[in-house]
Amino acid sequence: MAAKLILFPVPIGDGDPDLSIPAYNRELLNTCRTFIVEDTRTARRNLKRMGYDGVIDETVFLELNEHTPITDIAHYLDPISEGRNVGLMSEAGVPCIADPGSVITAMAHRQGIEILPLVGPSSIILALMASGFNGQNFAFNGYPPIDANKLTASLKTIESRIYRDSQTQIFIEAPYRNDKLLALLAARLMPTTRICVACDLTLPTQYIRTRMARLWLTDPPELHKRPAIFLLYK
Amino acid sequence: MAAKLILFPVPIGDGDPDLSIPAYNRELLNTCRTFIVEDTRTARRNLKRMGYDGVIDETVFLELNEHTPITDIAHYLDPISEGRNVGLMSEAGVPCIADPGSVITAMAHRQGIEILPLVGPSSIILALMASGFNGQNFAFNGYPPIDANKLTASLKTIESRIYRDSQTQIFIEAPYRNDKLLALLAARLMPTTRICVACDLTLPTQYIRTRMARLWLTDPPELHKRPAIFLLYK
Repeated sequence: MAAKLILFPVPIGDGDPDLSIPAYNRELLNTCRTFIVEDTRTARRNLKRMGYDGVIDETVFLELNEHTPITDIAHYLDPISEGRNVGLMSEAGVPCIADPGSVITAMAHRQGIEILPLVGPSSIILALMASGFNGQNFAFNGYPPIDANKLTASLKTIESRIYRDSQTQIFIEAPYRNDKLLALLAARLMPTTRICVACDLTLPTQYIRTRMARLWLTDPPELHKRPAIFLLYK
Repeated sequence: MAAKLILFPVPIGDGDPDLSIPAYNRELLNTCRTFIVEDTRTARRNLKRMGYDGVIDETVFLELNEHTPITDIAHYLDPISEGRNVGLMSEAGVPCIADPGSVITAMAHRQGIEILPLVGPSSIILALMASGFNGQNFAFNGYPPIDANKLTASLKTIESRIYRDSQTQIFIEAPYRNDKLLALLAARLMPTTRICVACDLTLPTQYIRTRMARLWLTDPPELHKRPAIFLLYK
């Protein structure tokens, strides 16, 4: 079998891997001795908890983050041309969604390298499944603008796509800004636009609730520093 | 623990469940004796292959499809108020995305019922992970219009969102129309817009390739009756 680029999801938070990762992923993990990762320290820890049986000190970690020179990245897939699989791992959840991994998959396509994406926890999909919102038409918008005025302007476009196109709108936020975002959404959206908050997905503390924007103004949940997804629909 | 609505993904095609379903899902499958399904016959088969240990003849199947009267659906979650879990299963992939399941999850929210979405194969997310396209901003548009003129008009809007918003655009098509859709996309999109075709995901015959629209005009792959996802980006 030709060597491949394999995309490995990682459990969200401290979740038990058996809850969110298929058994097969462990088998493939053990066919790789080179991993492209955002941070070597957390990647070592994630490999161990997912049952990697290679010697960590003999495993090659290639970092991919905002400090990585583009000239380094150009060589990241070289082991594949020498017949060895390379793994691409996220920090949490699935790689290449809301993380920098797609630089690598795009390069693999240009080099004619086979890519094998594996199943794992996507907080976007889990949240959408549970939201009660339209799953036939949806958009993930990444992080909302931090500036409150820009956010308000952006929400106008977003809300028009909800009502005109029946398109569910999805956001993620930096966990320490969750509470502020929810307060702004509740205050700035039309009162009957519905907000779903999905937090700590796959974890014992999981919280998923859908209600109208204005109802989130009273008794909001404590979301500070918890991984959360926000979904909007009519 | 309070009874819940549990959302069960199903392997795509005839795929081995261990490849795409976490071990935990089987445990939860066996806490349910009532399942909401699109089709009872395929649901029985899927329960068996996923390791369900209940007696199939004593299992209750509640069908949810275009023939189901809305008055029936209103009672589908009644077992939960009596303390028994209810499962919601897709035909393939994850429930409530590109299938009718969200009627049930929306009802669960109105009734204050806890929802537990489980991890499994989402062809949309697997395709996006492997596409090399923007995973920070993307839209799933469901099925494209069948009429070629309507499709052309729709592609104008879609393409403007690719170039103006840097938003990856994703479609699914009825498997017997895949070849026709790819030919139309290749002919009608701007020649340098990129198309990713992802087909038979999680199966041994998996095919994932990204190239410019005009390059798909020559030697297109045979996609007839194979489950496929189409992604577009600049």
